[in-house]
Amino acid sequence: MTNQSPSAPPVAVTYADIASASERLAPVANRTPVLTSRAFNTITGAEVFFKAENFQRVGAFKFRGAYNAMSRLSPDEKTRGVLTFSSGNHAQATALAGKLLGVSTTIIMPKDAPRLKLNATRAYGADVILYDRSEESREALANELAQERNLTIIPPFDHPHVIAGQGTVAKELLEKTGPLDMLIVCVGGGGLISGCAITARELAPHCKIIGVEPDAGNDGVQSFRAGKLIRIDTPNTIADGASTNSLGEHTFAIIHSLVTDMVSVPDAALVRAMRFFFERMKIVVEPTGSLAAAALMEEKIQARNKRIGVIISGGNVDAERFASLMQT
Amino acid sequence: MTNQSPSAPPVAVTYADIASASERLAPVANRTPVLTSRAFNTITGAEVFFKAENFQRVGAFKFRGAYNAMSRLSPDEKTRGVLTFSSGNHAQATALAGKLLGVSTTIIMPKDAPRLKLNATRAYGADVILYDRSEESREALANELAQERNLTIIPPFDHPHVIAGQGTVAKELLEKTGPLDMLIVCVGGGGLISGCAITARELAPHCKIIGVEPDAGNDGVQSFRAGKLIRIDTPNTIADGASTNSLGEHTFAIIHSLVTDMVSVPDAALVRAMRFFFERMKIVVEPTGSLAAAALMEEKIQARNKRIGVIISGGNVDAERFASLMQT
Repeated sequence: MTNQSPSAPPVAVTYADIASASERLAPVANRTPVLTSRAFNTITGAEVFFKAENFQRVGAFKFRGAYNAMSRLSPDEKTRGVLTFSSGNHAQATALAGKLLGVSTTIIMPKDAPRLKLNATRAYGADVILYDRSEESREALANELAQERNLTIIPPFDHPHVIAGQGTVAKELLEKTGPLDMLIVCVGGGGLISGCAITARELAPHCKIIGVEPDAGNDGVQSFRAGKLIRIDTPNTIADGASTNSLGEHTFAIIHSLVTDMVSVPDAALVRAMRFFFERMKIVVEPTGSLAAAALMEEKIQARNKRIGVIISGGNVDAERFASLMQT
Repeated sequence: MTNQSPSAPPVAVTYADIASASERLAPVANRTPVLTSRAFNTITGAEVFFKAENFQRVGAFKFRGAYNAMSRLSPDEKTRGVLTFSSGNHAQATALAGKLLGVSTTIIMPKDAPRLKLNATRAYGADVILYDRSEESREALANELAQERNLTIIPPFDHPHVIAGQGTVAKELLEKTGPLDMLIVCVGGGGLISGCAITARELAPHCKIIGVEPDAGNDGVQSFRAGKLIRIDTPNTIADGASTNSLGEHTFAIIHSLVTDMVSVPDAALVRAMRFFFERMKIVVEPTGSLAAAALMEEKIQARNKRIGVIISGGNVDAERFASLMQT
């Protein structure tokens, strides 16, 4: 199933928005480390810098966008509370941002979301509402509930203030590494790559931006090639953070204008990358967070002799789920 | 089976040896990060600083001692090559140090050593000789081979230059954190805790030093209580780095004189601590590396309101082995 979207709106985020998000985040977000691995450089023939957002608060970059967007709400909106929908990381991010900002949060999550993400979201004090991914549209459910309860929606990716928050990931990376030849970013709804592309255009204008999706959820690749927003059925992939139906209108417009290429990798490559991170780098990376590294390991991207930034988007994977993935 | 050892020799390592090891290591070893976790502080009621030696080269602190000892060999000893015996991390450490220093290495490893450790040791170019842990004495085998091949033995812990190298772990930690109330260190042969205790006496004289062993391998606890070196049969524990038969003569003398207390924890507590590191801190810690954290989580140590250093000794655990541990 593919639909054509209405023509995309003009890009609604500037680097000034990202710089301002950066100041707003400085007192609360972790400035996550930039890691290197001799073994990974040997395998790929490149010099790779990993921006490790698995060490971000809530275990994923999503905290940046959610906190930035929520901190920009009016006092009245803050008092009424916010609502969002998410397969997991944006849920936790919204819940924690709400706790820090004193804003009540209602979060629509799929019934089959990873246990770790469900539990953490509840632990931050959010009101969690479960839905069936295969039967209900989370957007429709969200709109209905938001109206009924008079809540402001903070969507997981397609919002200028969310995108601006995510762009601070590339800002911190490029401030640490200097200009790079290439920046490789996983793509679900496209919030992270959109923000990072805007940052890179400012701080490293010659840096190529490559997006990576799971093969099963390659709506972004399709949209990028077709030059229009393409929507797919809910994909079946272990990369739960990239099991989106489509990019957003804002994110597609930015990707269409600023991204160099989009590629996809099979789920088995994500397992191999997760094992590499675990055994050689001693870090825990969730399937979606392994997309960019997997594309390099699978030689989907020409990397030899280049200086490359790889964004590790998050590390939220149950020990049990990791165990079963390693034994497949 | 318990034996009494001959009376321990005087402490053969000074803080000056550790400071000098630190200079020798600076160009080659990683200055590993000091990590904190809001969740761990909440659980324990303490302010805990984790020195993450799982991010050290070869994935464990052992690189420090092996490199320091080997770099202090005479030109003639370097030309003839070295021999060692190890359940794993010291093996990899010796192999890598040999590669960096241009010294050939022969390493006696148990047949049942973790695959990751065996493979990595071979990959660094060492000549690996396997033995049966239950049937042969590795020390006897090592002495025989060393004589036959004219090699210098670099033992895994009971050597002043090895101990001095390991002491740099606490030096880096205390330089970062300032004085601590307590330093908690895992104990196998006692090289790490010995070096760290000497450092702490110099840099944080009021800091209590606590050693932690697996219940099944509590020879150090027994020796500490008895005031004499006690040897046990090869313990059956998942903490392969702490499955030693006894402390060494040097390490026992230092522990007896400088350590505040020794405790032990069950293997199940190590699995719980590994899961915490994995799910909440997104880092991979091997069973032995989890001993100190496990002692805090199990409330074996009074920690509330104290500033505590915890040493994570290493992160070398196969993904498969981790998976099977998580499913026990």
